[in-house]
Amino acid sequence: MMDEILENRRIAAVAGKFLRPPHRLNGLHESDAEIITLDPDFDRALAITTDALSEEIASGLYAEPFRAGWMLAMANFSDLAAVGADPLGLVVTITYPPAAGEGILEGLAEGIAAACRRVGTYVLGGDTNQGERIFLSGCAIGLVPKPVVLTRKGILPGDRVYLSGEAGLGGVFALLRLTEPAIPVPASFYVPVARMREGRVIRGRASACMDTSDGVLHTLDTLMRLNGVRFILDSDWPKILHPEVLKVCRARGIPPWLSLASVHGEFELCFTVAPQKEEALLRAANEAGWSPIRVGEVVSGAGVGIRTGEKVVDLDTARIRNIADSAASDPLRYVAELVGLAREVGL
Amino acid sequence: MMDEILENRRIAAVAGKFLRPPHRLNGLHESDAEIITLDPDFDRALAITTDALSEEIASGLYAEPFRAGWMLAMANFSDLAAVGADPLGLVVTITYPPAAGEGILEGLAEGIAAACRRVGTYVLGGDTNQGERIFLSGCAIGLVPKPVVLTRKGILPGDRVYLSGEAGLGGVFALLRLTEPAIPVPASFYVPVARMREGRVIRGRASACMDTSDGVLHTLDTLMRLNGVRFILDSDWPKILHPEVLKVCRARGIPPWLSLASVHGEFELCFTVAPQKEEALLRAANEAGWSPIRVGEVVSGAGVGIRTGEKVVDLDTARIRNIADSAASDPLRYVAELVGLAREVGL
Repeated sequence: MMDEILENRRIAAVAGKFLRPPHRLNGLHESDAEIITLDPDFDRALAITTDALSEEIASGLYAEPFRAGWMLAMANFSDLAAVGADPLGLVVTITYPPAAGEGILEGLAEGIAAACRRVGTYVLGGDTNQGERIFLSGCAIGLVPKPVVLTRKGILPGDRVYLSGEAGLGGVFALLRLTEPAIPVPASFYVPVARMREGRVIRGRASACMDTSDGVLHTLDTLMRLNGVRFILDSDWPKILHPEVLKVCRARGIPPWLSLASVHGEFELCFTVAPQKEEALLRAANEAGWSPIRVGEVVSGAGVGIRTGEKVVDLDTARIRNIADSAASDPLRYVAELVGLAREVGL
Repeated sequence: MMDEILENRRIAAVAGKFLRPPHRLNGLHESDAEIITLDPDFDRALAITTDALSEEIASGLYAEPFRAGWMLAMANFSDLAAVGADPLGLVVTITYPPAAGEGILEGLAEGIAAACRRVGTYVLGGDTNQGERIFLSGCAIGLVPKPVVLTRKGILPGDRVYLSGEAGLGGVFALLRLTEPAIPVPASFYVPVARMREGRVIRGRASACMDTSDGVLHTLDTLMRLNGVRFILDSDWPKILHPEVLKVCRARGIPPWLSLASVHGEFELCFTVAPQKEEALLRAANEAGWSPIRVGEVVSGAGVGIRTGEKVVDLDTARIRNIADSAASDPLRYVAELVGLAREVGL
C-alpha cells in the first residue's frame, strides 16, 4: 500500500538540490500552492503556484486553443482555491510555432481571458515566444489570511471527507477524446471552473484540502501518505459522480468508480473536516449557495478503501498512480490496465 | 525609425483580450516585471515576472542542463533586478522527455539551485512533467518599496545613459555557439549574474531601467519608443564592451558594436539618470563597490544614434529587431544580415 510513487521519486531528486526557503510556511508538497510570508507585520501571506501545458495539447486532449488557454488558467487558479486564497491574478508565457498562425495565439488568449473573468481575476502580464511546439505555462498568485492557512496537512482519524462537487468528468472527457478521437466531444461537455469561492468558504474550517486535478484517487493517495491516515470512500456513485460519467461508463461497460482513478481529473476540491467543525462548515457553504458532497471518512491506518455494503475493498493507489506514469502515452492500454485492476479487486 | 516591431504586434494581439488589472501599477510592457499593489496599507508592492526557455536548449545554445537551469533562473531574476526588487524566490516547471534520463533533471536543478544561491534567494516550489521536448518556465517574485517604483518610463532629454557593466558577451557567446557549433566554448566564457544589488542601488535614483537580456540596442529601441526620446550612444567600445567581445570580433573581422545588436543579450541593467541625481547615484554605487559605465545621453527626438567623432550615425533599430525576428532560426544568415547593415551605415 505504501509502495513508492515514481513521480515522487523524480520530485525528490530535484527538490534535494534546493535549500528550504525560510519564509515558506508549508513543507515541500504539503500544499497545492506555496504559502510565502511577505512581512511579519502584514496580516496576509502570498500564495503562489505554477502549472504548464504541452502534452495535453500535443495529444489532442485540449485540441482547441480556447480550451488550452482556459485549462491553463483554471489549473493554476484551482491550486489557489485549494489553499483558500483570494486571487491577485496570473502571469503566462506562450510559446507557439510561427506556422500555426496568429489565430492560435488569439484563441489561447481568449481562453485565458475568459477563465480570468469567470473567477473574477486578471492576467497581470506575460510573454510570447516562438518555438517548434506549443507550450503554455502560467503562474497564479493570491493572498491568504495568515490565521487560516489551509494546506494538505492536518487530517485526523474521525474527520469527514468531502468533495466540492460531483467528480469523474475529467477522466471521462479524457477517455472519450483520447480513445475515440474520431468521435467529436462537444466543447461544452467539460468546462471546469476552479472552486475559488468554495476554497474561501472552507478556509479556517476544513482540516486539509487538495484539488482533484490529477484525479480523486491520486488526491486521496497523496493526502493519506502526508497525514498517515486511512480513507474509506463511500460507493454511492450517483451521489459522488457526475451524471454524464454514469451514462458514459454504463454505455461502455466500464465501472464508473474508475473515473476517479484517471490521472486526468477535474478541479473539484477534496477536503476533510473535523466532526466538531462540520456543522459550521456546512452552514457557511449553504449560505454561499453551495452543497459539499460527503464522500467518506478518515480512520487510523494507511491506504484507501471503498466501502460496498459491509465490506471494504482496498485499492492499491500506488499501482493506480504508477500505471498512469507508464501508460499515459498509450490511452487504450491505460484504460485496459485500469479495467483489469477493477476486475482483480471485484469492483 | 518608428517602424513597427513585429514582436510588439504579436504582443498587442494577445494583450488586447485582457482587462487591465486595477491593482497593477505599471502600464503594459512599461516594466521588466509587473508591479502589483497587495494592500493599500502595506508599504511594499509585489514584483512578478515570468520567462520560459525551449528554443535556446533545442538550438544547442544552452546545451548543458546546468547552464539551462542557471539561465532560466537568472533571466527571471534579472527582470526583478530591473525594477529594483528584493527577491522572494522562484517557482519553476520542468518538462522533459523520460528518455533523456534523470541526469538531465539533476543538472537543471543544480543550475537553478546555484543561480538562486548566487543571488541569495530560493526556489519556492514547482512541478515536473514529462513531455517530448525540454521546456522550462520560471516565475520570480520580489518586493519593491512603493515610493521608489522603477519602471521603463520616466526618461527625459538631458538624462544620462548607463550600463551596469560591460556588454556584448551574450551576443558573442551566441555567435560562437551557433555559427561554429563544432568548436567548444568553455562553460566559464559566459556565466551571467542578474544585477540584483545594482537594481537596489539605483531604485529611487534612476529615472528608468530595463535589462539587456534581448541585447542593448533592443533595450534602447524599447526605451526610446516608450519615452518619446532619442538616445545618442558613445562609441568608446573598449569602455562599453567586454574585452572578450573585442577579441572575438577583431579575430573575425566583425564590427564590435554589432554585439549590442544581437538579440541574445546579457543581464546588465541599462538605466538613465537625471543630471541632478547623477552624483548621488554614482556615490551610492561606489559605496556598494560598483562602477556603472556611462554609455551615452538622452536628447529630444526619436531613434538611436552612435556618435563617432563629430558625426552621429543613425541606427534603424526597428530593422535590427525585425532581422532577429525573421532570422533567429538561421544564425549564419542572421550574422550576415547584421554585418551587411553595419556596412550600409559605415560603422
